[in-house]
Amino acid sequence: MSVKTKTIVLLSDLEDGQEGDFFAALSARTSSQTREGKKYWRVTFRDAQREVSFPIWNDSPWSKACESEWQIGECYKMRATYRRTQFGPQLEIRKIRATVEADTADGFDPLLCLAKSRFNPAQLMAQLRSIATEELMHPELKEVVLHLLETHEPALLKLPAARRNHHAFVGGWLEHVVSATRNAIFMADKYLADYPELRPPLSRDLVIAGTILHDIGKVHELQLSLDGADYTAAGELIGHILLGRDMLRDAAREFDLEGEMLLRLEHIIVSHQRLAEWGSPKPPMTPEAMLVHYCDDIDAKFHTFLTALEESAEGEFTSTRNPMQYRIFRGSGL
Amino acid sequence: MSVKTKTIVLLSDLEDGQEGDFFAALSARTSSQTREGKKYWRVTFRDAQREVSFPIWNDSPWSKACESEWQIGECYKMRATYRRTQFGPQLEIRKIRATVEADTADGFDPLLCLAKSRFNPAQLMAQLRSIATEELMHPELKEVVLHLLETHEPALLKLPAARRNHHAFVGGWLEHVVSATRNAIFMADKYLADYPELRPPLSRDLVIAGTILHDIGKVHELQLSLDGADYTAAGELIGHILLGRDMLRDAAREFDLEGEMLLRLEHIIVSHQRLAEWGSPKPPMTPEAMLVHYCDDIDAKFHTFLTALEESAEGEFTSTRNPMQYRIFRGSGL
Amino acid sequence: MSVKTKTIVLLSDLEDGQEGDFFAALSARTSSQTREGKKYWRVTFRDAQREVSFPIWNDSPWSKACESEWQIGECYKMRATYRRTQFGPQLEIRKIRATVEADTADGFDPLLCLAKSRFNPAQLMAQLRSIATEELMHPELKEVVLHLLETHEPALLKLPAARRNHHAFVGGWLEHVVSATRNAIFMADKYLADYPELRPPLSRDLVIAGTILHDIGKVHELQLSLDGADYTAAGELIGHILLGRDMLRDAAREFDLEGEMLLRLEHIIVSHQRLAEWGSPKPPMTPEAMLVHYCDDIDAKFHTFLTALEESAEGEFTSTRNPMQYRIFRGSGL
Amino acid sequence: MSVKTKTIVLLSDLEDGQEGDFFAALSARTSSQTREGKKYWRVTFRDAQREVSFPIWNDSPWSKACESEWQIGECYKMRATYRRTQFGPQLEIRKIRATVEADTADGFDPLLCLAKSRFNPAQLMAQLRSIATEELMHPELKEVVLHLLETHEPALLKLPAARRNHHAFVGGWLEHVVSATRNAIFMADKYLADYPELRPPLSRDLVIAGTILHDIGKVHELQLSLDGADYTAAGELIGHILLGRDMLRDAAREFDLEGEMLLRLEHIIVSHQRLAEWGSPKPPMTPEAMLVHYCDDIDAKFHTFLTALEESAEGEFTSTRNPMQYRIFRGSGL
Amino acid sequence: MSVKTKTIVLLSDLEDGQEGDFFAALSARTSSQTREGKKYWRVTFRDAQREVSFPIWNDSPWSKACESEWQIGECYKMRATYRRTQFGPQLEIRKIRATVEADTADGFDPLLCLAKSRFNPAQLMAQLRSIATEELMHPELKEVVLHLLETHEPALLKLPAARRNHHAFVGGWLEHVVSATRNAIFMADKYLADYPELRPPLSRDLVIAGTILHDIGKVHELQLSLDGADYTAAGELIGHILLGRDMLRDAAREFDLEGEMLLRLEHIIVSHQRLAEWGSPKPPMTPEAMLVHYCDDIDAKFHTFLTALEESAEGEFTSTRNPMQYRIFRGSGL
Amino acid sequence: MSVKTKTIVLLSDLEDGQEGDFFAALSARTSSQTREGKKYWRVTFRDAQREVSFPIWNDSPWSKACESEWQIGECYKMRATYRRTQFGPQLEIRKIRATVEADTADGFDPLLCLAKSRFNPAQLMAQLRSIATEELMHPELKEVVLHLLETHEPALLKLPAARRNHHAFVGGWLEHVVSATRNAIFMADKYLADYPELRPPLSRDLVIAGTILHDIGKVHELQLSLDGADYTAAGELIGHILLGRDMLRDAAREFDLEGEMLLRLEHIIVSHQRLAEWGSPKPPMTPEAMLVHYCDDIDAKFHTFLTALEESAEGEFTSTRNPMQYRIFRGSGL
Repeated sequence: MSVKTKTIVLLSDLEDGQEGDFFAALSARTSSQTREGKKYWRVTFRDAQREVSFPIWNDSPWSKACESEWQIGECYKMRATYRRTQFGPQLEIRKIRATVEADTADGFDPLLCLAKSRFNPAQLMAQLRSIATEELMHPELKEVVLHLLETHEPALLKLPAARRNHHAFVGGWLEHVVSATRNAIFMADKYLADYPELRPPLSRDLVIAGTILHDIGKVHELQLSLDGADYTAAGELIGHILLGRDMLRDAAREFDLEGEMLLRLEHIIVSHQRLAEWGSPKPPMTPEAMLVHYCDDIDAKFHTFLTALEESAEGEFTSTRNPMQYRIFRGSGL
Repeated sequence: MSVKTKTIVLLSDLEDGQEGDFFAALSARTSSQTREGKKYWRVTFRDAQREVSFPIWNDSPWSKACESEWQIGECYKMRATYRRTQFGPQLEIRKIRATVEADTADGFDPLLCLAKSRFNPAQLMAQLRSIATEELMHPELKEVVLHLLETHEPALLKLPAARRNHHAFVGGWLEHVVSATRNAIFMADKYLADYPELRPPLSRDLVIAGTILHDIGKVHELQLSLDGADYTAAGELIGHILLGRDMLRDAAREFDLEGEMLLRLEHIIVSHQRLAEWGSPKPPMTPEAMLVHYCDDIDAKFHTFLTALEESAEGEFTSTRNPMQYRIFRGSGL
Repeated sequence: MSVKTKTIVLLSDLEDGQEGDFFAALSARTSSQTREGKKYWRVTFRDAQREVSFPIWNDSPWSKACESEWQIGECYKMRATYRRTQFGPQLEIRKIRATVEADTADGFDPLLCLAKSRFNPAQLMAQLRSIATEELMHPELKEVVLHLLETHEPALLKLPAARRNHHAFVGGWLEHVVSATRNAIFMADKYLADYPELRPPLSRDLVIAGTILHDIGKVHELQLSLDGADYTAAGELIGHILLGRDMLRDAAREFDLEGEMLLRLEHIIVSHQRLAEWGSPKPPMTPEAMLVHYCDDIDAKFHTFLTALEESAEGEFTSTRNPMQYRIFRGSGL
Repeated sequence: MSVKTKTIVLLSDLEDGQEGDFFAALSARTSSQTREGKKYWRVTFRDAQREVSFPIWNDSPWSKACESEWQIGECYKMRATYRRTQFGPQLEIRKIRATVEADTADGFDPLLCLAKSRFNPAQLMAQLRSIATEELMHPELKEVVLHLLETHEPALLKLPAARRNHHAFVGGWLEHVVSATRNAIFMADKYLADYPELRPPLSRDLVIAGTILHDIGKVHELQLSLDGADYTAAGELIGHILLGRDMLRDAAREFDLEGEMLLRLEHIIVSHQRLAEWGSPKPPMTPEAMLVHYCDDIDAKFHTFLTALEESAEGEFTSTRNPMQYRIFRGSGL
Repeated sequence: MSVKTKTIVLLSDLEDGQEGDFFAALSARTSSQTREGKKYWRVTFRDAQREVSFPIWNDSPWSKACESEWQIGECYKMRATYRRTQFGPQLEIRKIRATVEADTADGFDPLLCLAKSRFNPAQLMAQLRSIATEELMHPELKEVVLHLLETHEPALLKLPAARRNHHAFVGGWLEHVVSATRNAIFMADKYLADYPELRPPLSRDLVIAGTILHDIGKVHELQLSLDGADYTAAGELIGHILLGRDMLRDAAREFDLEGEMLLRLEHIIVSHQRLAEWGSPKPPMTPEAMLVHYCDDIDAKFHTFLTALEESAEGEFTSTRNPMQYRIFRGSGL
Repeated sequence: MSVKTKTIVLLSDLEDGQEGDFFAALSARTSSQTREGKKYWRVTFRDAQREVSFPIWNDSPWSKACESEWQIGECYKMRATYRRTQFGPQLEIRKIRATVEADTADGFDPLLCLAKSRFNPAQLMAQLRSIATEELMHPELKEVVLHLLETHEPALLKLPAARRNHHAFVGGWLEHVVSATRNAIFMADKYLADYPELRPPLSRDLVIAGTILHDIGKVHELQLSLDGADYTAAGELIGHILLGRDMLRDAAREFDLEGEMLLRLEHIIVSHQRLAEWGSPKPPMTPEAMLVHYCDDIDAKFHTFLTALEESAEGEFTSTRNPMQYRIFRGSGL
C-alpha cells in the first residue's frame, strides 16, 4: 500500500465519468453472443447499493481472467471508470484483483459487497424500538419485546428477511418487520374501533407485539454468507417458527409474561404462515393471529412483486422465475 | 284494524319489561331437554337488530302451535313483553299470528325481520361515494366508479356481501366494501410512499377503485330472500367476478375509460380471489391487484372470526362449524 | 347407606346370571324398531373393561326414565343381573340412579367407567422405565428420558394416546409408547447391524429415546374427561409436538444434554408425523427420525385396524366410519 | 436480383436429389458428438410443411457460420439439394443468407416458415361456416356464430389452437374447432335421440354453437410470432375464456340473442375447461356444457398424443417431455 | 289363492283411474308437514319402470302400518287405484301386505321391483354382439370379445353399470356399454380417417374391443341385491379393473390372443379411469386407451346429469347431492 | 492375447499403490475448474464394488480422449495404479481402451461394472428360501412362494429393487426383500402375541408370504441394462403390481391355493404401495396388508436415506436431489 494509493470510494457513489478505487463483488457472469454471432461475457459487479452489468469482449484485456480466474461471489478491489451509456451503466476496468486480508485496513468488509436495504438499519431498529416503547401498553409484554430486540440487535441489523423470497438482503429483516408492524398498527386501530363489541376485545398490544416478533426466530435460522444467507442446522431441522417461540418463551420467563397473554403471543408466532403447507403447524385461531398473518404476508408479497419487476428490466411481463411462479405485469405505463 | 290497535314498535326498541306489538321472524326452533329430562322447544325470534332465544315449555299455551304451525323463516305479528332474565333476554308472548298482506298498511316489510348491518347503509353509501369523489384523480375512472355506485344504489343499499361466509346480512356489501376500501387507502398510501422507485409507480387510483368495484358483480349474483340470499341463475352459471367485469366494461365504454387503465382494473376484479380454487381465473399479476386481494380478504376474514365468536356464546373455543372449518379461540379473557 | 347395602362389585366381574350392585356409565342410547315395527331404546352401559348393549322395551318400567332422564356420559349406580343370551350379553336392571357425591365413599371413581387399556398401566410404565434404564447408553440422554417419565408419571398412567384415532382410552399413551418402543429397539438393532458403513452410524440411543418421547407433549395437549379426552387451550393453539419439545428442552437444560444430540432428538419430536398436512412442521431428515416415524405409525395404524374390526361386530367389511375412512376387511375366517 | 435468379420453390416441394432456392427457418441447433467423439452441430431447417434435420460437420464450410452467425427462429434464403439418405432427409447447402426486406418481392413471408396445419385453412373455414349455416336452427344464434366467424376470419385463418399443448401451428385453431364440432354434431345427435325424456331436451344448437365458439377468445389471447405464438397482455391478464365471452356478448347484443339461450351459451364458454385448476371459473352445469367440454378435450388430447409420437421418432415409448408429462407408447407395430 | 284372485298386473302398466293387483317395493318414506303444520308420511312405491310418490295422511287407515310396519326396500303385494292428480300420480291403496314365498307362483320376482333400464337388455346384448361380430377384424380379438359376452351373458343382462354414480339399475351395464361403444365406433372412424399418418395407425379394433370390455370386471365386482348393488369381497379388495383384466387374460390364453395386441388391450382396461385418484393404476398411454377413456366417461357423465335432473323435479337448479357434487342447471326452458 | 498379458484383477481389490489390469465403466464425467481457474475433467470409473473419482488435467495424455472419445456407461479395460491420496482415492492410468468381444475370454462381463449389493445374492436367495421353508405353515402357500422364487431365481439374483429410488443395483431386489421380510417376521410375531383377541387372528403366514412376494412383479417390470435398469413395455403399461399378482395367480392355480387365503394375498400385493398416488389401486384393507406396506416402506426409505448420505460426501446436509426431495442431515458427528 504505497503513499500514492487513491482513496477508496464506493461504487455506488461514483458519478458518470468518474474513476475510482472501490470494492465490489462479481455477482453474475454469463456467456453471451451478439446477433452477429460475436461472443462475449456479460458480468455484473455490485456493492451494497449498486449493480452494474456490462460486457467483457473477447478482445478485452480482461477476457482471459474473466473466463478462468474470476469467481462468482468473490470480492474484488477494482479501479474503474463508471459511465452511463445508451446500453446502461458500465465500468471501464483499469485494475482488478481479488481482495486480500490486508484490504481490511483500507476499510474492506465483505458486507460492503452484499445487497442491502435502501433504509438505514440503525434507523429502522430505532423506529421499531420506538414503536414498541410507545404503542405497547402491557408492561411485561413491552419488556419482553424490547429485551429481544436489544439482545439480538447486532444480528438483526444485518439479517435478511428470507433466503430468497423477499427482502433477501442485508437489513431486510428490519425493513420487512418495520413495514409489517406499521400495517399492524393501522389494522389493530381500525378493527378495534370498528368492532367494539368483539369479546374479548381485539388486543392491539398482541397484534403489534406479534408482528414485531413473528420472524424473530430467523436470527437462529439463517446465517449470513457471502452469497446471501444459508440455513443453520437448527434452521433446517427445527425452523424459525419454533426457534422464535423458544426465544419468546425464554424472555417471557425472565420478565414474568405468562398466562393467556403469553399463550396467545406464542400462537401468533406458531400460526403466522397460516397453512400447514406454508409452514405453520397451526392455523391462526385468534383475530390477532389472523391479522398478524396478513400484515406480514401483504408486505412480503409486495416486496416480491417489486423485486420481480426490478429484476427483469424489459418487456410487458416479467418471466415466471420469481417466488409467485407466474408472470408479473409491468405494462407500458399508465 | 280497529281504533284500539296498539302502535307497532320494533322488537329491538323494547326495553326490559315493556310490552309491545311488533313484527318478527322465527329464525330457529330446536327441540331440547333439561338435565332433568323435561322437553321443550327453544325458539328464536328476530328483527333486523335483535335476536331473542327462549324456551316454549310443553305446558305453554303456545306449545302446540310451536310444534305444528310455526314455520322457520316466516314473519309473525306478535304482542309480547320483553324481559332480561338471568337466562338471557326472553319474550312472554301474548298474541302471535303469521303476517298477512294487510300488515303492509301498518308498515310491515319482510326486510324488517332480516339481520342487517350495525351501520346505516345510506351513510355507508355516502362514505363510499365521498371516497370515490375525493380520492380518485383519474377523471374517467372516477366517473365510472360513481356511475356504477349510483346506478345500482337501490340494490347496493340492501345487498349482503356474501351468502354465508361473511357480512351475510342486509347492508353487508356496503359495510364490507367501505371497510376494505379504507384498508386500500392506507395500503396504497403506504406502499406508494415507501417504494417510489417502483416502475410503473403504484397506482393509488387503481387500488382504491379496484377495491370499491371488486365485488360489484354481487348485484347480479345474489338476490335477497326472506331466508338470506340466493344465487341467481347467472350468479351460479357465470359468477360475480365475470358479471362485475361486464358492469365495469359497460360503464367504461360509456365514459371512455380505456387502454391499460381499464385492462388493469378488469384484471383486479378478475383476480381478486387470488387462486383458481378460490374462484379467480387469473392470479393477481400487478401490485395493485395483489393489494386489492389482501384489503378484501383481511376484512372478510376478520368478519368471519367475529361472527364465529358471536355465534357460539360460550366455551374457550367455538365449534368448527364456521367458514374457517376450524375452532376459533375465545379464551377466558386477557 | 344402611347396613344391608350389598357390596359393590365390578360390572366386568359379573358372571352369567349373577346379580350385583355396580357403577357403570351410559355410553350410548339409540331409538330403534323391530322388523315388526315395535319401537324400543337400545342402550349401552360400560365400565372400564366391559360394555353391555341391550334393549329397553316400551313396556319396560325403565322406558320413561331411559327416554327423558338418563344422560349419555353420566355414571349410574345400578343393581342388575348380567345374562349371556342368544342376542348377546344383557342386563336386567333392578335399580338405577345417577351417582352422587357420597358414592365416593363406596369406592366410586368416574375413571372406573371409562374404557381403559387391557394392560396394567403401572406395569407398562415399569417396562418403559426399564427400557430406558437398560437400553440407553448416553448418560445425559438417559437422565432426561427417565426424568420426564418420572415427573409426569401420574398423568402418563391415565393418558390416552389420542382423542379418537387410536388407543383412545385410559392408559392408551403407555400401551402405544411401549409397543412403539419395542418396534424401535428391533429396527435400531437391525439397521445398525446391517449398515455399519452409515456415517455417522445410526444412533440406537436416539431411535429409542425418540420413540419414548415422541408423544410426551400429549401430557399438556389432552385432558381426560368423562366422555374421553379434550384438547387443552395450549393443545389446540400450540399442539403436542411443540409442547413436547418444550418439555424435552427444559429437561435437557437441567441435565446438560446439548449440542447435536439434543438437536437430533428435538428434530425427532418435531418431524414424527412426517408430513406438514399430518402435523409435522418438518419432515424426518435423519435416519433416526425416519425410523421413529415408522415405529410410531405402524403401531398407531395397527390399533386403528383392530379397533375398527372390534367396533363393527358383523359382516365381511367394517363401515367407512373409522380413521382410515375406508372399509376394513374381516372376511369370513381363513 | 439479376435475371439469372432461380425461381423460388418450397422446401416442402423438393424431391429427392433436387436442388432449389427456398426460404426456411432455422428451428433448432444442438451441439452433438459421434460415438467416436467427433463433434458436430445438428441443425433443423423448416418451412410450413417440412422439417429437415442434419449435421454440420466441423470441417464443413458452414461450420463457423453455424456456430456464430445463424440464429434460431430466423428465416434464411437457401440454395440446397434435398436428399433422402439412410440417416433421414438431409440438405446439402450451397448458399445461405438471412432473409432481407427485399425478399418480399420474391414472395417471402415469414409465415412460410412456420409450421402449419395439413389442412387448407380456407377450406376449414368454409366447412365451419357451412356447419353453422346448415346445422343451427335458432336464427339469432346462427347469426351470432356466422357474424363472429366472418368478423375474425383473417385472424382465424392463421391462429394456432394453443401456444404449445396441441395444434400449436398456423391454422391450428380451425383444424381443432372443425374437428371438435364434428364430434359435437355426433354427440348431440346421439344423446338427443337416446334420451328424448330429458327436460329441457338437449339443445343440439347449443352443443354445436358452443363448440364452434368455445375458443373464439383465442383471437385476442394469442398473437402469432415468428417463434410460434405469444400471449397478449389481455390474454395473460384476463384470458381467452373471458375474452371470448365478451365477443359473444357483443355479438349477441347486436343480433338480439338473449335470455336463457344466451346465458347457456356464455356458460358453455365459461366452463369448457371443466375444472378451476384447468382454467374454468365454473364447472359445466348443463348437459350441453358437459358435452362441449368433452368434444373439445378429446380432440385436443388426440392431437397431443399424435404430436408426441411424431416428435420422438424412435423407441417403444416417447419421452415424458410432452403435455401429458408421461411417456406415450408407440410399440413396435401391431 | 282362491278362484276370485284378480290377475296380477304391473304398476307401470296401470292407466289413470285403473285399479289393479301388483307387486311394488317401498323405496322411500319421509315424515313431512304441510304449511299449516299437518303432519303426514310421504311414501314412494316403485316397480321396474314406474315410481309413484304420494302422502299417507295421519287419518288414513294405513297411517299406523306406514309408521311402524312398512320397511324400505321390502316388496309388497298391493291392490290400489292409480290416479294422475294435479299433485302428480298417486295410489289409492285398498290392500297391502308384504310379499311371501308363495307369491312366486303368481309371478313375483324381486327383480320386478328394482329400477331397470328403459332399454330391453336382450336387445342391447344382441346389439353389442352384433357390433363385435361386424366391426372387429382381428380374428382372435373378435373371438375373445364374443366369448366373454357369451360366457357372462346371464350376469350382464342384469348388471348395473355402477353402484351409484350412473346407470345404477338393472341392465345399466349393457345400456352404458352399448352407448359408449357407439361413441367408440364414431371416434375410431373419425380419427383414423383424419390422421392417416399416425404410426402405428390408430387401431379401430382396439378402440371398439376396449370399450366393450372396459368394465367387464364389474361382473365380479358387483352383486345385485334388493336395494341396488353391493361390492363383493374381491370387488372391494381387488377392484373391477384388475378383475376384468384377469377375465381378458384367461380368454386370451384360450383363443391365442397375445403379444402387443393383448398388451394394448390390457392397458386399455387398466387405464380407462385415467387418473390414479379416479382408480386407474396407469394413465392412458396409447391413443386407443385415451379414446376409450373419453368414450366411456362422456356416456357416464351424460347419464349422471340426466339422473340428477330427473331426481330433482323442480327449481332452476338441482341440489348438490349428485355425483358431480355441484348443482346442475335445468332453467325454465329454452 | 499374448503370454505376457497380466492377470485380470478387480478394481475393488486393488490396494493402495498397486497397479493392475481391470475392467471398469466410466460412470460420470464433468467439466470442472480449480479456484485458480484451471480447467479439468472430473471422471468416475467403477466396478461392482468400488467407485473412484479423480481429475484428468488438461495437460494429461488422456485429456483429449477423455473429452472426445470416452463414453459414459461404456466399459473399459484399463491398466492403472490405485492410490489413496489426501484428495481421496485416485487412479493413475497407464493404458485404457473400450472393451471388446474378445475380452469375454478374459472373464469380462458387463455386470462386473454395475453397482451391486454388498451382500452375496446367492446367500440372500438361500436365506429367503429358508425363511419361506421354515416360517410358512400353510402348505399351499409355502409351495406357491417357493415355486415362484425357484422359477425366477436367475432373474431375481440380478434384479435391482427399483430403477432409482432405493436398492437400485444388481442384487438389490433380494437385499431389499430379505430385509423387509425380516421386518415382517418381527412385526407378525409381535402383533400376533400382543393382540390375541383380533378376529380373525393376524395371519403370520400372510404377512411373511406377502412381504416376500410384494415386489415379485419387478421380474417382468424391469430389465437390467448397462446404465441401470429400464422399464419393459409391460412394466410401463401395466406395472409390477398387476404383473406380480398375475404371477401369484398362475402359481396359485398350479398349487391349489385358493379362497380367502389367495384373495388376501392378492390384496397385499395390490395394496402394498398404500395410496393411489403412490401406485396402489386399493389401500391396505387388512391388518396383514397394512403391516406388509410398512415392512416394505421402512426398508426402502432407510436405504434411500443411506444412499443420499453416501452420495454426497461432504457438508452438514445432502442436497435435495434424492428421492425424498429434501435435504438429509449428516451433521458433524455425535
